[in-house]
Amino acid sequence: MSRGASPDHPIHELISERWSPYSYSNRPVPRADLLSIFEAARWAASSFNEQPWRYIVATRDSTDDFERILGCLLEGNRTWAKEAPALALGCIRQTFSRNDKPNRVAQHDLGLASASLSLEATSRGVYVHQMAGLMPEKARDVFGIPEGFEAVTALALGYRAEPGTSDPSLLARDERPRNRRPLDEFVFGGKWGRPGLASNR
Amino acid sequence: MSRGASPDHPIHELISERWSPYSYSNRPVPRADLLSIFEAARWAASSFNEQPWRYIVATRDSTDDFERILGCLLEGNRTWAKEAPALALGCIRQTFSRNDKPNRVAQHDLGLASASLSLEATSRGVYVHQMAGLMPEKARDVFGIPEGFEAVTALALGYRAEPGTSDPSLLARDERPRNRRPLDEFVFGGKWGRPGLASNR
Repeated sequence: MSRGASPDHPIHELISERWSPYSYSNRPVPRADLLSIFEAARWAASSFNEQPWRYIVATRDSTDDFERILGCLLEGNRTWAKEAPALALGCIRQTFSRNDKPNRVAQHDLGLASASLSLEATSRGVYVHQMAGLMPEKARDVFGIPEGFEAVTALALGYRAEPGTSDPSLLARDERPRNRRPLDEFVFGGKWGRPGLASNR
Repeated sequence: MSRGASPDHPIHELISERWSPYSYSNRPVPRADLLSIFEAARWAASSFNEQPWRYIVATRDSTDDFERILGCLLEGNRTWAKEAPALALGCIRQTFSRNDKPNRVAQHDLGLASASLSLEATSRGVYVHQMAGLMPEKARDVFGIPEGFEAVTALALGYRAEPGTSDPSLLARDERPRNRRPLDEFVFGGKWGRPGLASNR
């Protein structure tokens, strides 16, 4: 079952095939694939090449570490993320290492890295579901995240569940239609709110 | 001349071929490509599917709009970005539309969208150089960005300059080696700072 995007303009298959499932197979992701997935994050762009992203990763076979990441998620995410074969926390360095001044775009640049990671995963048949629902201070305590760094997101990584092998309510969530605001509502030209690439411009 | 990444683990060509040039050709980017590039942003993931990203776009042939985006950049970026055939501002909605509460990850999710956009561009031979050096309050005045929204990044889009056709100091900046922190320094396991996918785990 493809859950590809339904774009109004053609986009690369990697981008249209990426989506965020709730139901995961318990099949482990080979370590070589995980290495390539995080390697993709490594090559993202960042302001002053600061690379403010840090990840804490656990696979399900490292039971204790996996449970500790799970324990940092909000309850609503724990219910489905516990089935994923790998979990991660996405963290940032809040200041620039060259001068210790606040990095206004650290979180943005974590987003650049996590998007690269997700698309590398897509190219390997691995799906990534990112979450904002986590407890950053709990993560700080549990993993010893130092001052000046902060957990911002969590990520579940794995293969999709085969039909019939997963909680039907999760599978149902994965069948909801995907929808997005049309281009004219977020790409502006000349003035806020005016369509920017509309046909008569 | 390829400026591909030199990854320690294999990554998808789209991701390894993306980089952020300083020297641009004045060849315009066809509107069909720009539509696909922003369509790719559209299908990014976001917290509660809020899609907090907004872009203000101008191509060089819309001289007035182009100059107004250029005028929102810090001087150091204006010197090279003025040669790009298209510029954009990356903006966020700061609150969730469903409840007007602060969206803690709006900036992160703009990063997800802008990374998709950059990789779609790569697939079309178009390069994107993102900037954090801009004046958000000037952008607010110039484009009428309403309260509750904010400009976070600027983006230059276009084709690379042919050797000999661009400012040699910009071309030289494009020849600097690309470097990144190794995986063990940003992917942790069990505990902050401990390599997370190291070979003996």
